[in-house]
Amino acid sequence: MSVPEKFTGFQVNGPETWTEFHKNEFQPKPFGDYDVDIKIECCGVCGSDVHTISGGWGEQKFPLAVGHEIIGTALRVGPKVTLIKPGQRVGVGAQSYSCLDCRQCKNDNETYCRKQLDTYGAVWPDTGIVSQGGYSSHVRTHEHWVFPIPDALPSTVAAPMLCAGLTAYSPLVRNGCGPGKKVGIVGLGGIGHLGLLFAKALGATVYVISRTHSKEADARKMGADGFLATADPNWNEEHIMTFDLIINTANSFEGFDLDAYLSLLDVHGKWVSVGLPEDEEGIRVRNQTFLKNGCFFGSSHLGSRRETLEMLQLAADKGVRTWVEEVKINEENLKGVMQKMKGAGGRYRFCLTGYEEAFGA
Amino acid sequence: MSVPEKFTGFQVNGPETWTEFHKNEFQPKPFGDYDVDIKIECCGVCGSDVHTISGGWGEQKFPLAVGHEIIGTALRVGPKVTLIKPGQRVGVGAQSYSCLDCRQCKNDNETYCRKQLDTYGAVWPDTGIVSQGGYSSHVRTHEHWVFPIPDALPSTVAAPMLCAGLTAYSPLVRNGCGPGKKVGIVGLGGIGHLGLLFAKALGATVYVISRTHSKEADARKMGADGFLATADPNWNEEHIMTFDLIINTANSFEGFDLDAYLSLLDVHGKWVSVGLPEDEEGIRVRNQTFLKNGCFFGSSHLGSRRETLEMLQLAADKGVRTWVEEVKINEENLKGVMQKMKGAGGRYRFCLTGYEEAFGA
Repeated sequence: MSVPEKFTGFQVNGPETWTEFHKNEFQPKPFGDYDVDIKIECCGVCGSDVHTISGGWGEQKFPLAVGHEIIGTALRVGPKVTLIKPGQRVGVGAQSYSCLDCRQCKNDNETYCRKQLDTYGAVWPDTGIVSQGGYSSHVRTHEHWVFPIPDALPSTVAAPMLCAGLTAYSPLVRNGCGPGKKVGIVGLGGIGHLGLLFAKALGATVYVISRTHSKEADARKMGADGFLATADPNWNEEHIMTFDLIINTANSFEGFDLDAYLSLLDVHGKWVSVGLPEDEEGIRVRNQTFLKNGCFFGSSHLGSRRETLEMLQLAADKGVRTWVEEVKINEENLKGVMQKMKGAGGRYRFCLTGYEEAFGA
Repeated sequence: MSVPEKFTGFQVNGPETWTEFHKNEFQPKPFGDYDVDIKIECCGVCGSDVHTISGGWGEQKFPLAVGHEIIGTALRVGPKVTLIKPGQRVGVGAQSYSCLDCRQCKNDNETYCRKQLDTYGAVWPDTGIVSQGGYSSHVRTHEHWVFPIPDALPSTVAAPMLCAGLTAYSPLVRNGCGPGKKVGIVGLGGIGHLGLLFAKALGATVYVISRTHSKEADARKMGADGFLATADPNWNEEHIMTFDLIINTANSFEGFDLDAYLSLLDVHGKWVSVGLPEDEEGIRVRNQTFLKNGCFFGSSHLGSRRETLEMLQLAADKGVRTWVEEVKINEENLKGVMQKMKGAGGRYRFCLTGYEEAFGA
C-alpha cells in the first residue's frame, strides 16, 4: 500500500461547532528519517478529545482532527527507523515528540520533557504544521512514539490503552502497585476501568470509589475487590489509613470532600490525580489536609515508551480487556459520540472503527 | 532531689489575655509505671505555643502552660522504665502519647497513631487532666517520649531540635535527603534554619528560598549553598526541575505563587509543608498544578522516637548548632517573647532558661 501525499481526517472547525465534523484533506509534516507512516484501523475516543474541541481546555488550533488512541498498520518507515518494521500492527498514543536528549528523556521520563508535543493540536517545530490526530486516515509519527501491538490484543481493546490505559498504568507502577498493596481507583470511566483492570493485573487488592453504587456490578465483574460509594454515610470509616495508593480519575472536584478521601491513605500514601478537569477553580487544600497521615497529593502525565510496551505485554499476558463500545467513524456517529462523552460517557470506552469504509482501502 | 506533688507553670488563661502569664500550681497526671519525672532546665519557644494560646488554632483548654521543646533532668522513673535512668539529661518534644500497639506505632510511625496526644493541651485518657507543657517546673512523660541528650549538645541548642528540628529532620530523611540531592528550604525561621542545618549535616546541596534577600547572609553562614529570593524577577527560571525535595516551613500561603515553587521540583519530586498556618483558606490547587513534573505535595507531622535519637546523635557528631537567643523565664519576658513571635519571630529560636530562678532549685 502506498502512502498518500495528503492525509484525510474528520476535523472540527472550532468550539462553537464542536460536534460538527468535516472530512478534509490535510498536509502532514514532512516525512523524517525516524518517522513511521501508519494507516489507521481504529481510534479510541478520549475525554481529551472532547475537552479540546469544545473549548474546555482553552484556545486550540483549528481545523483539527483529534484522537490519540490510534491503532493501525505501519506502511513505510524512515531510513533510520530501527524500532518498527513495515507491515507491523502498531499504536500511537497522546504524545508524539520529546527532545530525546535531555535528562528526563534519557531517564524514562520523556513525558516530562519540557519540549514534549501532543499527538494533535501541537505545532511541529520548523514547519508550523499543526499535528492531527487519529480521527484520520493516516498518522505520521517518530518511531519512539510508535508501539508494536502484541498479537493477543484485539485492536479495539489495545487502542484505549494507549492514552487511558497508560495514564492509569504509569502512576500505578511508579508508586508500587503490586501484590500486598491496597489500591483505590476513584471514578469508573474510561481511565478508571483500565486503572482497575491494570491494578488487578499487577496483583494489588483494588477498591473502586464512586459517588453511588450504580457501577458496582460492573466493577465487580472487572475484578474489583471492593466498592465504596461516597454517598453512603461514614463510607470511609472502615478503611481509614489502609490504602497505599489512590488513583483519582474523576473529572471534577465538584462536591469533593477531599479530607474524607485522603483519610483512606496509609502513612505517606499517595493520591495521584490523572484527570484534567476543565474547572479553573481546583480545590482548596491546607497543610492540615495532609497531616494526619503525612500523605501526598499529585498528578501524573501519561507514561514512558518503556512503560507503554510493558503495559501492552502485561495486557497480552494477563488477558486485560478494555470494555469497549465500537462505533463506525462518520460525521453522524462522531456527533453522537461527542454528545455522549459530554454527558455520562460510554461504558467504558468508545472506539472508532470502519476506517476503510470512511477513508477507502 | 524529690518530685513535688504538684508542679508549677506559667499559664495563660485564654486567648483574650494570651500574653499574660500567671505562675500557678497544677496537678500532673498520676505517676505511671512507664513515666519519667523531669525537672526542667530550659524550653524552646515554638510557633505552636503562640498559635495555641492566641486562639489561632481554635479552642483550647485553659489555664494552660505551653512549651514542647523541653530539656531537663530525669528525677525519678517508674518501675517499668528501661529507656531512661534517674539523673540523665533528657528531652521531651511535642508528642507525649500514642498507643504503642497499632500498626503505625509498631512501624516507626507513632506520630501518625490515631490516639496520639500532644505534650500540652491534651486531655489524658481516664483522668481528664489537661497536659501542661514546658513553661513549667517539671514534666511527667512516658519513657517512649523522653530522649537522652548527647553530652556534646548544650541544653539550649538541643531544646529547639525536639520540635522544630524533628519537624524538619523527619521529612528530610524520609524523602531521601543526602549526598547528591538538591534540597530547598522555604522560609528561614525556627524550623527553616534547623532544616537547613540538618539537610547540610545529611550531606545534601541546600538552597534557602525566601521572599527577600534579608536573611541571605545568615543562610550562607549556616551553610546554604544557594539562596533564592522570590521577589526577584524570574527567580525560579534557572532552577526549574532541579530540586529533589522542598521543605516548606512558611507559616502562610499568602501571596504564594505555588506553580513557580513547584516548577523547581524534578520529576516526582516532593514538596512537604511542615508549618501549620492559622489561615483557614489554604491554597487552591488544580491537577494541572502538578502535571509538568508529576510532583507531589504533602505535609509531615513531627517524627518518630528513632528519628529523634538519630537526629540528636547527628547533631552531636556533626556539630549542628541551633541559632538560639536565650531568655530567662518570667512573666515579663514571656510577654515580650510572645509579642516578638507574633511578629517577625526570633533569629532563629528563643529558648527559655533561668528555671531555678523562677521555680526554685
